[in-house]
Order: sequence, then structure tokens, then C-alpha cells
Amino acid sequence: MNFDIIRTARAILHVTDLEKSRDFYLRGLGFIETESDNSTIYLRGLEEHVHHSLVLKKADTPAVEVMSYKVRSEADLDSLAVFFEQRGHKVKWLEEGTQHAVGRAFRTQDLSGLPVEYFAKMDTVERMLQRYDLYQGAKVQRIDHFNNMVPDVEKAHDFYINALGFACSEYTASEEGKIWAAWLHRKPSVHDVAFMNGQGPRLHHIGFWLSDPMSLIHGCDVLASIGYSDSIERGPARHGLSNAFFLYLRDPDGHRIELYNGDYLTSDPDFKPVRWDFNDKRRQTFWGAEAPDSWFNEASTVLDVHTGEPVKIEAAKLKQHKPVFVI
Amino acid sequence: MNFDIIRTARAILHVTDLEKSRDFYLRGLGFIETESDNSTIYLRGLEEHVHHSLVLKKADTPAVEVMSYKVRSEADLDSLAVFFEQRGHKVKWLEEGTQHAVGRAFRTQDLSGLPVEYFAKMDTVERMLQRYDLYQGAKVQRIDHFNNMVPDVEKAHDFYINALGFACSEYTASEEGKIWAAWLHRKPSVHDVAFMNGQGPRLHHIGFWLSDPMSLIHGCDVLASIGYSDSIERGPARHGLSNAFFLYLRDPDGHRIELYNGDYLTSDPDFKPVRWDFNDKRRQTFWGAEAPDSWFNEASTVLDVHTGEPVKIEAAKLKQHKPVFVI
Amino acid sequence: MNFDIIRTARAILHVTDLEKSRDFYLRGLGFIETESDNSTIYLRGLEEHVHHSLVLKKADTPAVEVMSYKVRSEADLDSLAVFFEQRGHKVKWLEEGTQHAVGRAFRTQDLSGLPVEYFAKMDTVERMLQRYDLYQGAKVQRIDHFNNMVPDVEKAHDFYINALGFACSEYTASEEGKIWAAWLHRKPSVHDVAFMNGQGPRLHHIGFWLSDPMSLIHGCDVLASIGYSDSIERGPARHGLSNAFFLYLRDPDGHRIELYNGDYLTSDPDFKPVRWDFNDKRRQTFWGAEAPDSWFNEASTVLDVHTGEPVKIEAAKLKQHKPVFVI
Amino acid sequence: MNFDIIRTARAILHVTDLEKSRDFYLRGLGFIETESDNSTIYLRGLEEHVHHSLVLKKADTPAVEVMSYKVRSEADLDSLAVFFEQRGHKVKWLEEGTQHAVGRAFRTQDLSGLPVEYFAKMDTVERMLQRYDLYQGAKVQRIDHFNNMVPDVEKAHDFYINALGFACSEYTASEEGKIWAAWLHRKPSVHDVAFMNGQGPRLHHIGFWLSDPMSLIHGCDVLASIGYSDSIERGPARHGLSNAFFLYLRDPDGHRIELYNGDYLTSDPDFKPVRWDFNDKRRQTFWGAEAPDSWFNEASTVLDVHTGEPVKIEAAKLKQHKPVFVI
Repeated sequence: MNFDIIRTARAILHVTDLEKSRDFYLRGLGFIETESDNSTIYLRGLEEHVHHSLVLKKADTPAVEVMSYKVRSEADLDSLAVFFEQRGHKVKWLEEGTQHAVGRAFRTQDLSGLPVEYFAKMDTVERMLQRYDLYQGAKVQRIDHFNNMVPDVEKAHDFYINALGFACSEYTASEEGKIWAAWLHRKPSVHDVAFMNGQGPRLHHIGFWLSDPMSLIHGCDVLASIGYSDSIERGPARHGLSNAFFLYLRDPDGHRIELYNGDYLTSDPDFKPVRWDFNDKRRQTFWGAEAPDSWFNEASTVLDVHTGEPVKIEAAKLKQHKPVFVI
Repeated sequence: MNFDIIRTARAILHVTDLEKSRDFYLRGLGFIETESDNSTIYLRGLEEHVHHSLVLKKADTPAVEVMSYKVRSEADLDSLAVFFEQRGHKVKWLEEGTQHAVGRAFRTQDLSGLPVEYFAKMDTVERMLQRYDLYQGAKVQRIDHFNNMVPDVEKAHDFYINALGFACSEYTASEEGKIWAAWLHRKPSVHDVAFMNGQGPRLHHIGFWLSDPMSLIHGCDVLASIGYSDSIERGPARHGLSNAFFLYLRDPDGHRIELYNGDYLTSDPDFKPVRWDFNDKRRQTFWGAEAPDSWFNEASTVLDVHTGEPVKIEAAKLKQHKPVFVI
Repeated sequence: MNFDIIRTARAILHVTDLEKSRDFYLRGLGFIETESDNSTIYLRGLEEHVHHSLVLKKADTPAVEVMSYKVRSEADLDSLAVFFEQRGHKVKWLEEGTQHAVGRAFRTQDLSGLPVEYFAKMDTVERMLQRYDLYQGAKVQRIDHFNNMVPDVEKAHDFYINALGFACSEYTASEEGKIWAAWLHRKPSVHDVAFMNGQGPRLHHIGFWLSDPMSLIHGCDVLASIGYSDSIERGPARHGLSNAFFLYLRDPDGHRIELYNGDYLTSDPDFKPVRWDFNDKRRQTFWGAEAPDSWFNEASTVLDVHTGEPVKIEAAKLKQHKPVFVI
Repeated sequence: MNFDIIRTARAILHVTDLEKSRDFYLRGLGFIETESDNSTIYLRGLEEHVHHSLVLKKADTPAVEVMSYKVRSEADLDSLAVFFEQRGHKVKWLEEGTQHAVGRAFRTQDLSGLPVEYFAKMDTVERMLQRYDLYQGAKVQRIDHFNNMVPDVEKAHDFYINALGFACSEYTASEEGKIWAAWLHRKPSVHDVAFMNGQGPRLHHIGFWLSDPMSLIHGCDVLASIGYSDSIERGPARHGLSNAFFLYLRDPDGHRIELYNGDYLTSDPDFKPVRWDFNDKRRQTFWGAEAPDSWFNEASTVLDVHTGEPVKIEAAKLKQHKPVFVI
């Protein structure tokens, strides 16, 4: 490979009411608002030195415009674009100046049909890590990962590993020995992106990292205090998989946000992917209440980067069912 | 009143397998084992200077033998016994030496039919509060309260307040304006005892106090590590009522234990009981997953202090239903 | 005794710059401002249902106007006033309406010369315990105790226990077997008031209770972020004595505030006071850096309740020295 | 560069009493003992999937035998050895089988004279991350960094960045504009290695990462409980530099260990090193007590990888003094 993808960088979400979203993400989750206008809010976590990791755009319908990854250099960006084109993925360039605070970028539909974007450059801003007086709500520190529902996880897994250079930290094997779900990373954490078997392509959730478990608990208390207790869909609890101490929230448009703490270092090439059986209860819920049906069934619509229309959804390739332990 | 009940002091539970219970309470919850023999284990929390706050007795059937309260002096004890007898509650004395580590005591059935015991004296032992090297699991610090399901909460509420001198910190009003549940205290915390409308008399749970929320989270992790993830029935989450950060566990015999953190001081006579509407979701679950049916329906059988037989269960006086928000 | 002192209730501090103090106590420590005018700020902790626990009054010179305790009823108040007068303590009544939000009260100089006040009634207000969105800085929950430097600790100890009905939870014995310091309580915590051997009478610090250790750490971070890192005099660390996880701060006028977590229940009459040797290092500092000289030497001037003038300071009766482990 | 250093991997310390060290590192810090014999103990943190990150060897005199880094592959290892030899650093190979659980490795003296080692392979073992029942003391999770005192920081800084491919996250500039100290990383954390101006070469401390601040507080409590309160040299407090919530300990031989929490992600090439002025108090101590003299003056002797003799110490190139704020 002659390109180096560094990490998950940002998402652009379409939301229907900017004020409602602002309240949820700022007071509830603790994001810093870098900038905004009538149609867009740029948000970053407390430790982020870059302009934003989440963009909220006013739209008529909730959707995911794109999920972006940062690459090491402009040369990496060019190589990666060539690579996608050679594989038959139509590429759409957005030259510098097209997008606020971001350098030149290209977008494409990945092999699962997910709208992805790559760029090498984003404006840098003041890091608020030591402005503890600005910490609010769940004190979100930084973006961590995307989790997607796709019909063919094994295909996505192979492409991201073999073609894009991701490594697998953990995966779930179905009863038939197929890959049911996979956690893949470029930065040495558990993941930058995960794929789960399901109707798709859809975005299941965006994960944001918290620096400690008490920020998650305090986040729950603040969310409940300001009227968002119904936004808590699942958790707090711990996944066996990834060892995450987690909370799943639905934002005012139904986009799912994971607050995430408890990762580990995956820098070593000799780290062998952890295998979990589909029906091992500790995989999903090391402890804590069972996931509600909505968590298994609902996810955000993703858009075509060329047409702006919703990407067509297909059924999952593997038989879709809840694990036996939740029946 | 010429007696002074200090606080909830201990419970005696019948369990069917002492070894299983020992593992759960010691490694999982972090109790200190003060003493034990072939038929009994005496447990105390990390800050307790008294011999025990929980007794596990080997028996064929799980049950609650008695719930004990400590009174200020032997004179208080005598006055209280007279009081019960005058009200028609048959009293059974256990003279000093009858019960290990406890002074003279009397037992009776309270007006809900719950087996209660009073004593003024218990052996004191070394407090382990600063033996942090012995802290295990959920690091239980001390006993906090009993929570009982009874058919007529209002009657229990009135008796404990008017006759026994408890104060009410918080209560739930039913749709018809009746007292659905009440939290009553002698020590200036939210409660020493609570009553909830339901089939009874039964013990719903014993609450033990933790010194901080992270002990509860670590407790979950340890319980899951040693095979007790299925013992976690509800939580972690926060009650609006009492502001408790809570976890409900079922011990190996099904007795329910609450790990509890987040109380407040109720010392002042001008503290007005907090009223919660039955259908205010924040009452039960300020945030967190809904309670499972088992939490509403299941509770421990209590024994008659005179016959040793299970106390007859009666239906709840108020219509028994789950709050609308969980339907 | 025919009076019942419930607990430490509030202090009135003279400060030289209300705006500076407001910033420190609100943004730094997390107090709720109940009310204020040009000369006075009334503050309460997050769980307090009463109007205030700390009053800051604009003055030319920093000083302690009075330390107040709450009694159970007006009858208790009258009995206590009579008691003080009979012991030769001149009493000054402040009738209802004289002090904002407080019922009738009397003030006197206690036998160490400390300005104390008693009242039975204070206006109640909305409790902010579950308004987690208002939590700031160190998230102070409630007032806990006063700690005073007095020349004759043994005399103060005996008076508070024998005459006023306090109980001793812990004490430090000097090398000669005298009581060097004592922790005394009415509410069943480690203390409502402590006395330490030293030049006095002076107020060493006011202790406020936090609900968990992480609030203290976050408080340090916020204080440093807004320019108060020099206000941190000692800690965070743990005292052996009282098991407090503590932080000592100096407010903008030099008044010392302790943030305090880690108490235990002292409700039982059979709880024997814990004895600590003066030179047992674990007493002062179970772990953590040694106390600076300022902590041993500096304290707030207290005023005479009748004249408003500073109370004359006397040398400590016991030889004043730092423990050997800090030499 | 044709080699890829992944991360700080392990240290080998000479200690004089294995039993004393075992107690400190296991019960106090929470390391897992992978293996041991009469002369050596192999330790790893709770999340580490490799055989060890710390080796304690029985010796007559405390010293640092070597500090090891992991490289990506055997080819990287060969290239790196050639690189060192070409720069005039004599290389000593230890073929596979020479060192327990480690593949072939080479050692050399780096340009500051520090004994360093590189290898690509270490045996993997069971990860204990989800064996919460084995968590003890400070719950050390993984090795994080080495911090060294060297006479010429700027030279070390340039070599590690330009020749070895490290990136600088933060640095301290002396009053004269020279680099007084530098934090350098390969894995995308604040550092794998730091250099501070001082008599050297010496190892100032090894940093181990904790997953949350409460583990550090609990670690202090456990260390104090089992007799190691005097081993706490500095902290807990927060550095401005690196945002570390830290604790410095001296092991039974005086080797300094840092418990460390509060890092941030440094994956991006556009992350600009944070510059701190030498006399900015918040750099060393964002909040917390000042560092004692021992922290500035004392460090571990390092050995020559060829002779096994102590490396000769030289005076610091920049004027050695404590920052003005600690005078």
C-alpha cells in the first residue's frame, strides 16, 4: 500500500433542528462548539486540536452525509483516490475551499455502499483539554470510531484489511463460523470502524471516547436533568467485546451516539484478533441489562456521495437474529 | 416515646448452600467474614465496628428469619417490648447468650407481619475501613436499609412514624392519592426501612451502602469475572427517588441485595418528605433501563418469629400494576 | 440535657471583595447562590434544602463573625440559652426578622471564646441535588464541620461532650497523654466540630462534604483552570484520622476551606473513640505530601459576638510543635 | 528510515531483594506475575498480551540493565542494528533463546549513553483485562514510557526525532530558549520516552498507565495500608505538561515508578508540539504540592550493555536549578 490512513476523523450528520441538536451535544455531551452559522454547527471534543470531529447540517430528513478518515499526506490522498478508481469506485473530489476548515478531499461509496471521505488536512484550533472550567455533561474527549450495519461483513472485513491496511482487534463468529461482526483499526485502539451483520449499509453509531467512567455516569445524570433520559437507549454497562464501558444514546434525530471508555492498546503486529462466539453472552453484555430491540434494528440512513439520495438497503447475508441469550 | 431506635442493624437470611453464598458475598460484594461455622456465616461491611450486619444460616429453603434494629439502651429495649405487647404484638425474648455476639433481644411480628428484632448490644470488632488491601469486589461499607413489600403501605407508614418514631424522607403517591410506597428513617439518611405496595409481607431487598459510584462499577466487573453476571437484575442506574445510584443483585438463593450510593442528610425536622407521582418516570428511573418484571414481582419469603413457618401472603390493597411508563 | 443540637448549620465569614469570593465559591467550589445583595452572598450546597450554609459579608478585614448550629425546636433553643446564661456565658438574642432567612437566634462566646450561634429555623428552598446540569467545580454538597484552634483542647472537649451532648469519634493524644485534638459530633458522622491544640481561639477551617472522590479531583482541575492553583494549600491526600479524602483551600481572603469525602457512620453509643498517637504519621497523612507550615500556623480571626472586635488570642496550653515525622 | 519502532516495551531493573519487590509490585501496584525463578520475576500489566513489561533481576546493587523498545519486524530489527553501527554505536546481539520469552535482540548505548535494547518478538500470554477479580492495588494496565535525565537534552531530542523517527508532543524551553526537556513518542500517546536536563545518563522513572484516576487513589490507599506510604514521593497531582494525573513512587530499591493517567491522542502529523516555559508553574504542577528535592536530584544508575558497569555520569549542559516557582 502506498497510502496511510491515520484514523477516523469526523462525520457529517443531517439533522432537522439545529437548536435541539446544539442543546443535546453541548450541554448533554459536552462538545465544544468551534463555529456555526444558520445551517451548520461544527463540534469538537475536549482534547481535539482540530477544527471539528462532528458536523451537524440542517436538513429536512435525518441522514448521514459522509464518514471521514484522515490520511497522512496529500500524496497518500492521491494514491488512495487512484486506488479506489482502479477498483471501480467512482471518486468525487472536493477541492480546498469547498469545505470549511478542511483541505482537499475526495468522497466515494465504499464496497458496502457506505459514503466515505478522505482528507489530509484540517484547520487546527485551541485544544480545550486543560480548560476544565468548560467541561460539561459527559465531557466528550474525541471521536473514536464508526460502527456500521452491512449485509456482508466478511466482504467489508477483507476489503478494509487487505486493501486499506486496517487490522482486526476482535470479531464475532456466527454459529456457522462466518464473521458476524468485526472491529478494525488504523490508530492502535480497538477500532476506527466496525461492521456488524444487518440490513444495510447503515450507520449504527458513532463512538466518542471519554477519559474515565465517572464522566459517563455524570453524563447520564446531566442528560436526565435536562430532559434527555429517554435518549438513553442502552447502558451504562460493559461489553465483553472491546472491554468498553458504554452508553448508547439517540440524538434528537435518532442518530445513535456511543459514549465509550475502556479501550486498550493494539499497536503490536503479534496481537491476535480476539474471537467471540455469537452466543457468548459476555460478548455483548459482560454485565448489564439486555439490549432493546431498537438497538438491533434501527440505524441511520446513509446518502450517496454522488446523488445525495439515500443508499438502497439490502438484507443481511447472514441470518439476522438476536443472540439466543436475549430470547 | 420512651424508646430510641437507632438504625437498621442486621438481617438473618436462610440460604441453601453456604459455600456458594460465601463466594458471592465475599469475593463479589466484598464483605468481611467475621466468623463462621458449619451452619452460619457472620458478615460485616468494611466500616462496621460491630460483629456483623448480615447472617447467613444454612437451611433447606431460602427465607428471611428476621430483620433487626438496634436501640440505644437496654432500657429502650424494655420499653419497646412493653409497647409492642400493649399493642397486641406477641413478643419473644432471646436472652443474652442465646444468639452469638448479640445481647438480649426480642422478636415480634410487626403490624404488616414482618419478622423484626430489636437489641441494644452487639460485640464490637476491628474496623477494616483502613485495611484497603482487604477491599474486594463491590467494597460493601455498611448495612443501610430494608425494603419490604406489604399489602397496606399506608398502615405501615403510619405505624412506623406515629408509633415507632421514624420520619418520612420521600414517598410515592398512587393515582388515587394514596401512599404507594414510603421511605422512612431513624438515622439521618434517606431510609432505614421502606415499604412498597405489593403482595406481602415479603422482603424486597436489603440495601448496603457503598462509599462511591466507582465501587459499584468495579463490583459489576468483578461479579461478571467470577460468573455472576446473571445475578445482576437491574442497574446500574439512578433512582429519582432517594437519588440512589443503585444496583440490584439476586444472591445464589434469590435474595435481593441493593448496592446503594448517593444518599443525603435528613437530620432536620423541617425536611419535608419529597412527594413523587406514581407515573413520574424519573421516580423509579431517573435514567437507566426499565426494571424487569422480576423486580416488581419477586421477593423473599419471611418467617414467623414464633413458629418459624412462612408468613401468609396477602394481596396488595392498592391495585398492583407496573407504572404506565414501563408498559 | 433538655436541648438537642442537631448539627453544624452555617458560618458567616467577613470577606473583602464579594466578586472575588463569588467566583471562587461558585465556579471553583460549586456552591449554589441562593440570594445576594451589595453586601452579602448566601450560599448553599447542592443537596441542601435550607436557604444557606455559608454567608459572605463584605467587610474591611477578613474575619469569622459566627459559627452556627441548628437545634431541634424553639423550646430547645430557649433551654440552651438558659443553660449558657447559667454557666456565665452572656447571651445575645437576635429576634426573628433580624437575620435574613433565619428564625430567632442567640449568640454567645463558647468557653474557648469562639463566637457561636444557635437557631431552630431557617427558610427552606429548592434542593438542587438532581439538577446535575448546575453542578460546577468541586460540586460541594453540604456543610459538614468546623475545625478550631484553641489553647485548651481538653477543656473544650469536656464541655462539648458533658455539657452540650456531643460524642467523640476520634482524638489525638499528645506525648504526655493529654488530648491534643478531638473530633466531636451530634449528627452521626465523624464530626460537627473539631478542636486542635494551638494559638486561639481561631477558626482553622470549615469542612464541606463532597459525594465522591472524583468531585474533589475535578474540583482541583477546575480551580487550576480558572487561576486558583495557588489556593490549594494541602492535598489531595487521605487523613488516617476520620479516613477523610481531603483538600485544603484558602479562599481569596485566606479563610481555609476543607473539601471532604470519606466519612463513616457514628450512630452507635458503643462506638469507642479512635485514639491516635500524636507522632503516628498515618494520623495526619495516611498517604500524601506533608502539610506545609501555613497549615499548622495560620487560621482565621474570630470576632466577639457582643463587641464585634477580634477575640484575644492566647498561646496553646500544650507545647506547640509539628509532629516529629514532619521535621 | 527503513525501520519502524513501535513502542516502549519493557525495562530490566536490578533489585536487591526479590521478595520485597514482589510485594510492592504485585500487592501495591497490581502487576500480574507471569513467571519467576530464584533470580528473576517477570511482570505484566492487566491489559498486556505479551509475556512481560518489567523484569526484576536479583543483584547486589540497584541499577537499570536495559530499556527495551519493540520494532515491527525482524527486518526492521536488522536495519536498525545496521543504522546504529553505521553511527558508531557498538551493537551487542542476543540471539533467540538467550533471553527468556524474547526473540533475538540487540543492545547498544544510545547517544546519551543510555542502555537500550530492540527486539521484534516476545511470547504472548493470556490477557487479564477482563479478570477483574485479579485486580489489585493500583491496577497497573500497561507500560507507557521511560523518562531519562541526560546532560544534553537537545542532542537526544534531535537524534530521536531525526534519526529514529520519534515525534515530539510537548517540550520545555529553558530561559535561554534551549530545550530543557522533551516528550517524544512512536505510539500515538504523549510519549514513549522523555528526556530532562540533568546529571546523567540516568533513568528518572518508568511510567505505567492506569485506566482511570480512581485506580490511582485506590493505589495510594492500598500502598499505605500495607506499609508503603513512605514510598509515595510526589502526588497525586496533575502535570500541565502531558495533562498527566500522576503519582511518583520509589520502589524498595529506590527505582522511581510513575502511575500515569490522562494522556491524549497524538496520531496526527499536524499536531504541533506544545511549548512550556521553564518557569510556568502549571507545567510541572497544574495543581498539587511542589515536588520534593529528591524528585529533581535522584535517579537510577544505568549500566553499560557491554561491560555491565555503571555508565559514567556527566553534569547537565544547561544550568541545573529548580524552577523559580519552587524557591
